Amino acid sequence: MRILSGIQPSGILHAGNYFGMMKPSIDLQEQGEAYYFIANYHSMTSLTDANLRREYTQRVAIDFLACGLDPKKAVLFRQSDVPEHVELSWMLSTVCPMGLLERCHSYKDKIAKGISPNHGLFAYPVLMAADILIYDADVVPVGQDQKQHVEVTRDLANKFNDLYGETFVVPEPRIREDVAKVPGVDGGKMSKSYNNTIDIFGEEKAIKKRIMSIVMDSRGMDEPKPDAEENNAIQILKYVADEETYTETVELLKAGGYGYGHVKKKLFECYWDHFAEARKRREELLANMDYVEQVLREGAEKARGIASAVNKRARVACGLQ
Amino acid sequence: MRILSGIQPSGILHAGNYFGMMKPSIDLQEQGEAYYFIANYHSMTSLTDANLRREYTQRVAIDFLACGLDPKKAVLFRQSDVPEHVELSWMLSTVCPMGLLERCHSYKDKIAKGISPNHGLFAYPVLMAADILIYDADVVPVGQDQKQHVEVTRDLANKFNDLYGETFVVPEPRIREDVAKVPGVDGGKMSKSYNNTIDIFGEEKAIKKRIMSIVMDSRGMDEPKPDAEENNAIQILKYVADEETYTETVELLKAGGYGYGHVKKKLFECYWDHFAEARKRREELLANMDYVEQVLREGAEKARGIASAVNKRARVACGLQ
Repeated sequence: MRILSGIQPSGILHAGNYFGMMKPSIDLQEQGEAYYFIANYHSMTSLTDANLRREYTQRVAIDFLACGLDPKKAVLFRQSDVPEHVELSWMLSTVCPMGLLERCHSYKDKIAKGISPNHGLFAYPVLMAADILIYDADVVPVGQDQKQHVEVTRDLANKFNDLYGETFVVPEPRIREDVAKVPGVDGGKMSKSYNNTIDIFGEEKAIKKRIMSIVMDSRGMDEPKPDAEENNAIQILKYVADEETYTETVELLKAGGYGYGHVKKKLFECYWDHFAEARKRREELLANMDYVEQVLREGAEKARGIASAVNKRARVACGLQ
Repeated sequence: MRILSGIQPSGILHAGNYFGMMKPSIDLQEQGEAYYFIANYHSMTSLTDANLRREYTQRVAIDFLACGLDPKKAVLFRQSDVPEHVELSWMLSTVCPMGLLERCHSYKDKIAKGISPNHGLFAYPVLMAADILIYDADVVPVGQDQKQHVEVTRDLANKFNDLYGETFVVPEPRIREDVAKVPGVDGGKMSKSYNNTIDIFGEEKAIKKRIMSIVMDSRGMDEPKPDAEENNAIQILKYVADEETYTETVELLKAGGYGYGHVKKKLFECYWDHFAEARKRREELLANMDYVEQVLREGAEKARGIASAVNKRARVACGLQ
C-alpha cells in the first residue's frame, strides 16, 4: 500500500499541526510505503516571500525528522525537487472541465473571504491531483475538508484513462474521522490564521508565556468546575499528558480549590516534557544540517524514480513522446 | 536578438500555414537567434488523439526542414522535450490574477462558439507566457490575434519581477501587419477548421483535384473579367507564381477568351513547381528520419540549455530552491 501526503511550508509548525497532521503521518509510516512531500509549489498560491519559503521548507523537514519521521521508512522530499508533478498537472488540466474547478469549495471559500484570486489558487486541485496520481498512490489520508480534492483527482484519473487508455491508479480517499481538534489559546481551532497557536519548538519562556495566556472564564480558584473537560487548557493537556496526570488534573478542577494558574503550570510542564525528546533530536539535527539535506536529496531521488516513470507513462499515453 | 515562435501540431500543414507562418519564420532565421518549438503541450487543449499528436509533431519538423528551415541557423524542438516550460508556467500562475485570463479573447471566443471549456484552454496564455519568458526572448512575432497573449506575458513578467526581484526579460511583441491572407478553395480564409485547405505536400492528383475544385463564379470563358485580381485562384496564384506569370494570367482573364479551367491549370502548375524543391528535400528527409530525430534532439538540447538556466533563475528568485 502506497500512502501519500503533502505538507505546506506556510509557517512555523504548532501543536495543532502536530496532533492534527504530523503525528498521524508519522504513525502511518509503519503501515505502508509512505511518501511525504513538502508542498512548496503549492505554498506559492499564498506565500510570496522567497526567503520565508526556503526557511519554512527546511523547518518542515527538520521538525518532521525531530518528531520521529524515519527516513528509512518514509520518503520525505521537497515537491520542487520533482518537477514532474507540474508537468503531469498540465496534462490533467487539458482533460479537466472548468466547471469541476469552479465548484471546488476551497476556492469558493477564499473568494467569499474577499481574497483576490490568483490562477494558481484556482488550479490548485489539478496540481494536487498530479501530486497523488504521479505516485500511483492507493490511499490518500485526508481530513473531511480535503475530500472534494480527492474526488477531483479520481475524476481526472478516470477522464484521462477513458481518453488515452489505462494510465493512472484511481486512488481511494481515507477520510480521517478522528482528526485531533486542538484548541488555540483563545479557545478557537488552533490555526496560524487566527494567531492563537502554540509552537512545537519555541523557546521555553515564549511557550510558557503563550500557555499562561490561554483564555479562561472568570470563576475563582475555590469554585468547583464540573465542566472541567471543556476547559481550553485541559483540552490541550489531554494531548500532551499521560492519562493519569490528565484524569488527576480534571478531578482537582472539578473538586474546587485548584486554580487556572495551576492548570496552566501543569499544562506547560507536560507540554515541555512531551516534546523533550523531539527537542533533543532537533538540536542534533540543527547541528547536522548536512544530514537533513541528505535526507531530502535521497528522498527526492526515490520519489523521482517513481514519479518520472509514471509521468513517462502518461506522456506516451497522450502522445507527447 | 532572440526570436521565439511556436507552431501547433494540430493537422496537416497547408498553403495558408506556409505563407502565413512558416515562410515568415524561415525568413526570420537570417535576422537573429531563432527558437521554434512544436507546441505539443498546447495541442492537448484541442487534439485528444495520441497517435495523431505524434504524427503531426513529426510532420511539422519534416515539413519545416523541407521548406528551408536551417537547423544551423534556427533551433527547432519539441516543446515536451523541455518540460521546464510547464514548471515555469506554474510559477507564473501564482502571480496571475484570474481576471487577466477571464478577459482573454481566445478563451471567450471558444466559449462563445459553444466549445465545452477545459482548464488547459483557460490556462493556455500562462503556458504561452512561460514559452516566451523561459528563453529571455526579446521579440515575439505574432499576428494581431495573438497580441493580447503577448500583453499577458508582459503583465506576468512584470508582476513576477515586482514580487521576487528582476528575473525575466519583458518581451516586445512584433505585430506582423502584412500577414499573408491565402484564400481557401471556397474563397474564405484558408483554415483547417473550414475544410477548404490545399496541402503543401499532398499527392499530385489530390492537389490537382483540390485546385480544380476552387469555387468560381458562373461567367463564361469568353467574357472579360475586369475584376480578375479578386478571383480566388488568382489570389493563390499571386503567392506561388513569379510576377510575370501572375501579371500575364491576370491580363488574359481581363481580356476575355481565357476560362477558369485555364486559370486553375496554370495555378496547379505553378503550385506544383513552387514546392518542387521542398518536395524533393522532403523525400530525402523521409528516407532519413534519423536525421530529423537528430535535429529535434539537438534542438532540444540547445533550447533546454537556456530554458533550464532561466527556470533555475526563477526558482531561486521565488524560493523554490
